[in-house]
Amino acid sequence: MREVALLAGVSIKTVSNVVNDYPYVRPETRARVRHAISELGYRPNQSARGLRSGRTGVIGLAVPELRLNYFAELADAVISAAEARSLSVIIGQLGGDRDREMAVLTEGLRQADGLLFSPERLGIEDRDLLGRVNYPLVLLGERIFGGPTDHVSIHNSTAARAAVEHLLTLGRRRIAVVGTHPDGREDQIRPADLRLEGYREALAAAGIARDPQLERPVAPWHPQNGAEATRDLLASGVDFDAVFALNDMLALGVLRALGEAHRRVPDDVAVIGFDNVDAGRFTVPSLTSVDPGREEIARTAVDMLLERMDPGAHVRRPPRLHKARFRIVVRESTGDGPRQPS
Amino acid sequence: MREVALLAGVSIKTVSNVVNDYPYVRPETRARVRHAISELGYRPNQSARGLRSGRTGVIGLAVPELRLNYFAELADAVISAAEARSLSVIIGQLGGDRDREMAVLTEGLRQADGLLFSPERLGIEDRDLLGRVNYPLVLLGERIFGGPTDHVSIHNSTAARAAVEHLLTLGRRRIAVVGTHPDGREDQIRPADLRLEGYREALAAAGIARDPQLERPVAPWHPQNGAEATRDLLASGVDFDAVFALNDMLALGVLRALGEAHRRVPDDVAVIGFDNVDAGRFTVPSLTSVDPGREEIARTAVDMLLERMDPGAHVRRPPRLHKARFRIVVRESTGDGPRQPS
Repeated sequence: MREVALLAGVSIKTVSNVVNDYPYVRPETRARVRHAISELGYRPNQSARGLRSGRTGVIGLAVPELRLNYFAELADAVISAAEARSLSVIIGQLGGDRDREMAVLTEGLRQADGLLFSPERLGIEDRDLLGRVNYPLVLLGERIFGGPTDHVSIHNSTAARAAVEHLLTLGRRRIAVVGTHPDGREDQIRPADLRLEGYREALAAAGIARDPQLERPVAPWHPQNGAEATRDLLASGVDFDAVFALNDMLALGVLRALGEAHRRVPDDVAVIGFDNVDAGRFTVPSLTSVDPGREEIARTAVDMLLERMDPGAHVRRPPRLHKARFRIVVRESTGDGPRQPS
Repeated sequence: MREVALLAGVSIKTVSNVVNDYPYVRPETRARVRHAISELGYRPNQSARGLRSGRTGVIGLAVPELRLNYFAELADAVISAAEARSLSVIIGQLGGDRDREMAVLTEGLRQADGLLFSPERLGIEDRDLLGRVNYPLVLLGERIFGGPTDHVSIHNSTAARAAVEHLLTLGRRRIAVVGTHPDGREDQIRPADLRLEGYREALAAAGIARDPQLERPVAPWHPQNGAEATRDLLASGVDFDAVFALNDMLALGVLRALGEAHRRVPDDVAVIGFDNVDAGRFTVPSLTSVDPGREEIARTAVDMLLERMDPGAHVRRPPRLHKARFRIVVRESTGDGPRQPS
């Protein structure tokens, strides 16, 4: 470090400031120090740095799996938000495994100073566990509400209701919903249940009676399952003119199954998804979807975590719940644009 | 730590072994220690641990962007391979930015002991930089060959040749290629150039003359660009009965543009992609693609990095190049299965 300072013609303190990514170093000075670091092949001892500064500059993000586009795009947004604040992100995969979720919650992700935690299996009955966590934690998703930690979520039922209202304004009346939860337990709060609630509210408000045949349980929310549920729906002979898929992965499968059956989208059946993943822009027809506000979720969650990680923050705020703004992104699957080949 | 040991009824050494995820602890003992850790709210000082053990148990993965399915799925595979070896993964995004790639290469990812580095902008002219890196590094991808570090890559030209040969065996003779590099520089080694080479070799071996009109430059490899290139190809009036898209993201766009133009796939135009991303299973028609061996890439790269990180490894092996095994995954876009609605 001394050699770096000598070569760059700056103080050791300045080298330390550059190494620690503190903002108050002039860009030219920073460049000179970086150059000297590179010339000398100097590499700061990361662990010693962590000890000195009291934190490592690393946050954790635990998600079910990155192969699911929603979580890959969320991770992308979290990494970008974190990098803008000079933080690195360790990503852990929970893999839909309750024990693994429990272990990650209890121990945190190794080397991370705080955690953005998006569980899929832990539920409201595990809420007390959150209170026993002894590191900064921000909860993501819809599995647990009213816990003792900050929480960033989305407007599940309101957004779902808006999705169905969009189909209603197109004149659709026989609207199927694909992706409800197979076990139908009333004691759980799950995205599936909240979105189903929004669906039922929209129908009720429009004076349309609920038809249980149009509510299709599916788990997990993968394209092949969306396709199968749609094939079953078609085979059952029940009449429908629209499908609300509870996420976009399901919707990809719905489009696929409708295509196989030569049903035209949106002419015969309009389709709307939920999540607004990139892939929905390139299907034939392109997919109308609910954009849940991913960038806002990522930015807010990282900022909340940073606040909680600040060792100087003596005043402890009570836990906060932030719900991101959503919007409906209309594309061809419910729109007037080019149609699927017919 | 002493309290944890007392409560669990084990030695401090055993607690340390559990905390450090060493394998030689009996499962029951491990469970007891974990339970005591959780009871006492004990949290090991990660940085101190890093100092003691000489490494942090964290590796870095730097990729262009996670929104690109190939890299999300690669990251998924790397995290799984790393977790199986009790390592955590910090993910950095390079964002197609040459300066950022240079900075990450020079400094590594903060807190990571080693790096899997998949650049998109650095090229063969930057090869010497790799030799100046003073931390364990494994190179991924096709931008730089013959460098001084371990390298995991894929069989680009051979796999591309196999893809085109698959189209030839279907009787296709007018095969377009979408995604060649716009600048056509001969001094670069890029996936686009290597795959184009394989395309040309396959045609030459089949005695088919090359038609420059069928070679369509596209950058970057995003679906919208694949769609535009295909629209241009259709508008040009040149005859073609197959498309080789140089990656699957382009292929999604190709399918989309062919759909808009009411060209039947595969009847009128057969389509093959490259990467075998999950999304290709759910398009209509589903997408035939080259599987480049993602799991093998991830596993091999993590193992190579672990070897290079081992402070006890006195014998230094020369740099290794590993190319993963590929295979052609045949789906509807070149197959005999259900056709696109017609």
